Amino acid sequence: MAGHDGKIIMFIGDGMGGRDVPSLGGRTCLEAASTPALDALASDGASAMMYLANPGQPIGSDTAHMALLGYDPHKYYRGRGPFEAMGVGLDMQPGDVAFRCNFSTLDDNGIITDRRAGRPQTGTEELAAAVVDAFKDGINGVQIFFRASVEHRAALVLRGEGLSYHLTDVDPHAAGVKPSLCAPAPDCPPSEIAAAERTADVVNIFVAEAAKVLDANPVNAQRAAEGLPKANSALPRGAGEAVDIPPFATMHGGLRGAMIVEVDLVRGLGDYAKMDVIRVAGATGRRDTDEIAIAAAVVENVPKYDILLCNIKAPDLGGHDRDPEQKVQAIEKVDRAVGYLLDNIDWENTVLMVGADHCTPVVTGDHTGDAVPVVFYGYGVRRDLVHTYGERAAAAGGVGQIAGADAMTLLRNFVGRIDKFGA
Amino acid sequence: MAGHDGKIIMFIGDGMGGRDVPSLGGRTCLEAASTPALDALASDGASAMMYLANPGQPIGSDTAHMALLGYDPHKYYRGRGPFEAMGVGLDMQPGDVAFRCNFSTLDDNGIITDRRAGRPQTGTEELAAAVVDAFKDGINGVQIFFRASVEHRAALVLRGEGLSYHLTDVDPHAAGVKPSLCAPAPDCPPSEIAAAERTADVVNIFVAEAAKVLDANPVNAQRAAEGLPKANSALPRGAGEAVDIPPFATMHGGLRGAMIVEVDLVRGLGDYAKMDVIRVAGATGRRDTDEIAIAAAVVENVPKYDILLCNIKAPDLGGHDRDPEQKVQAIEKVDRAVGYLLDNIDWENTVLMVGADHCTPVVTGDHTGDAVPVVFYGYGVRRDLVHTYGERAAAAGGVGQIAGADAMTLLRNFVGRIDKFGA
Repeated sequence: MAGHDGKIIMFIGDGMGGRDVPSLGGRTCLEAASTPALDALASDGASAMMYLANPGQPIGSDTAHMALLGYDPHKYYRGRGPFEAMGVGLDMQPGDVAFRCNFSTLDDNGIITDRRAGRPQTGTEELAAAVVDAFKDGINGVQIFFRASVEHRAALVLRGEGLSYHLTDVDPHAAGVKPSLCAPAPDCPPSEIAAAERTADVVNIFVAEAAKVLDANPVNAQRAAEGLPKANSALPRGAGEAVDIPPFATMHGGLRGAMIVEVDLVRGLGDYAKMDVIRVAGATGRRDTDEIAIAAAVVENVPKYDILLCNIKAPDLGGHDRDPEQKVQAIEKVDRAVGYLLDNIDWENTVLMVGADHCTPVVTGDHTGDAVPVVFYGYGVRRDLVHTYGERAAAAGGVGQIAGADAMTLLRNFVGRIDKFGA
Repeated sequence: MAGHDGKIIMFIGDGMGGRDVPSLGGRTCLEAASTPALDALASDGASAMMYLANPGQPIGSDTAHMALLGYDPHKYYRGRGPFEAMGVGLDMQPGDVAFRCNFSTLDDNGIITDRRAGRPQTGTEELAAAVVDAFKDGINGVQIFFRASVEHRAALVLRGEGLSYHLTDVDPHAAGVKPSLCAPAPDCPPSEIAAAERTADVVNIFVAEAAKVLDANPVNAQRAAEGLPKANSALPRGAGEAVDIPPFATMHGGLRGAMIVEVDLVRGLGDYAKMDVIRVAGATGRRDTDEIAIAAAVVENVPKYDILLCNIKAPDLGGHDRDPEQKVQAIEKVDRAVGYLLDNIDWENTVLMVGADHCTPVVTGDHTGDAVPVVFYGYGVRRDLVHTYGERAAAAGGVGQIAGADAMTLLRNFVGRIDKFGA
């Protein structure tokens, strides 16, 4: 370390990048939005275009945030399950296989009638306890851990010898059909087929037995009496293997990091990386989120940490909903949050990066692998010739073209908190 | 090879890149300096922005020049010691562990009173001979080689089985304290701890015994009589392992390379890579260096070699001294040298690259990992739309964003001296 103590803020508008929108005159939502704060950053800072992974590769929020935090996802990512499980508070050990689960409603023929079981507001902890009790002796020598989270959400962890996470989802991602049988995934390496088959057997036994236990539980009798859909199955998806990743501070020369984010998966990553995960009242992860409360939490926590990662989810929702107006409004929320930071942070001692974890264009409704615009502002940043924040403007940025995994290196460089390579 | 015989000149202004300087109206030193020759190159050539390693990673002159010469420093760099030792003429074999040493002054309590022993002008060869003689039987089965260089500078090489270079410095980089004990470095791989401990033992015995031999030497009695600080210790630092690197000509299709550089470490690299290292009278490595003598030496040697690497140290000194005026003047020296080349080289047959090995901003006083501007000019270069040489202008360069390791490939491409990949 060069002896400085500059602070770092990484601020991510989830899915904020996009493509040309005909109804916006060919502009992107970012270009169409009124973003005085982001434009001020661009004008007084330095821009870059960023591919989170290799150019053109669409990427998820989990893998994108891994890259942004300096963890090569090609090395450390083995499915989303472990982040989901961490996010609901299940402990994991390297080699465990973890799943996100939905409580879902099955009819008498085993057909899914509601993938989210009517989003139950109560009773899922009791249901989870019954499942845990039913599997307290494990399945085929594999230990079973299960825990409920908010509404229909839950997580499942398998612990035992010789498991594999190369598995298909049980949740068919649609109602009107039966749950799928778990099986080795099409991309399962040949050497892991036997382990994947053994693990799939455990999962299939879990799903069948859990459905019996859940259907028989008094919570579901009560739900039926109230005319609510039963939460009478637990359907795993997103299998992943728990890996041993270095703590964030170890990766980055002792920097103390915290995250203030709206995405559960990213919170799970934060837990996994032993970063502090700060919750903010009013941060809903929806269109109605309180962006000023989020920005105020960032300002409040800057003195306590070396780096804060912040994420606002709303722009991604507008993209997935294919709704330009909604996405523009969400981007203007991000701009207001950044404006609050501009007014309330000591920029002589702090560097800020604003960017996106991926594009979610309203014209596709899903993540794409196009470059996202990034701007760096504050301590250590060499101003460039770009004056607005947006996809097209960023291509002329003075920081050039970067990968997601470069972000932490650049930020640490700006504040002088990175060792020299060589002499 | 495509059968051409175009010549290549790579001209490096050491640490010439920078950041915005408030006292220069927010310009960098490069932008504030009067650089008619560099601007002419930009106008008639093609620019690029270059990260020597990955974007944002600060880098040393040694690792930077390795990259510029086409040697991936992540593969070939194992500490600066070997370059230092080569620079003072000590032979090395793969596996040897080498150190830079300072002759330093210890008081009666073993406290360092002058890290450079008053920069002795004479007597250090005699002192080194006494050290060599004292360790002619080695230490714990390890052979000891030691040699004095200019003023307080010397180098130490250990040769034996099972050594490790993952060691802390004995030189504490400060006066007023005792020399540090050598120990395994914090980043020493667990598998090498035992070897590092054994090597540290040898170093610690060397330091203690050498201090006795040096203090007792007549040269120091004479220095004391003259009121000069005694050169009564030799303090190692910058441990590195000698690796077997391919000669420059082997790396680059038989190109005969030479360097005319002002940095000892880089000269050591040249020796290591079996390039010719040309000394120029008047090249002092200081602010007063004779840049025209250096440029004239380049012109004189172009007919004898395929590629010449040239380095002027002065801009880096201004950066480390945090002195904008000094750095601007140093950059203008580089510009005059380049102007001399412009007037005296056959550009129909020669390509020139001017760039920097890293940024040394006057606002930080140390190396940073920001991009440096690069310009290519002459034979084979496709002119771009950039008209001035500087950090901001280079972001629009027609060669785009490159890594240090791309430089040799691009230069060989411009003059048609690189094999096609494929058919």
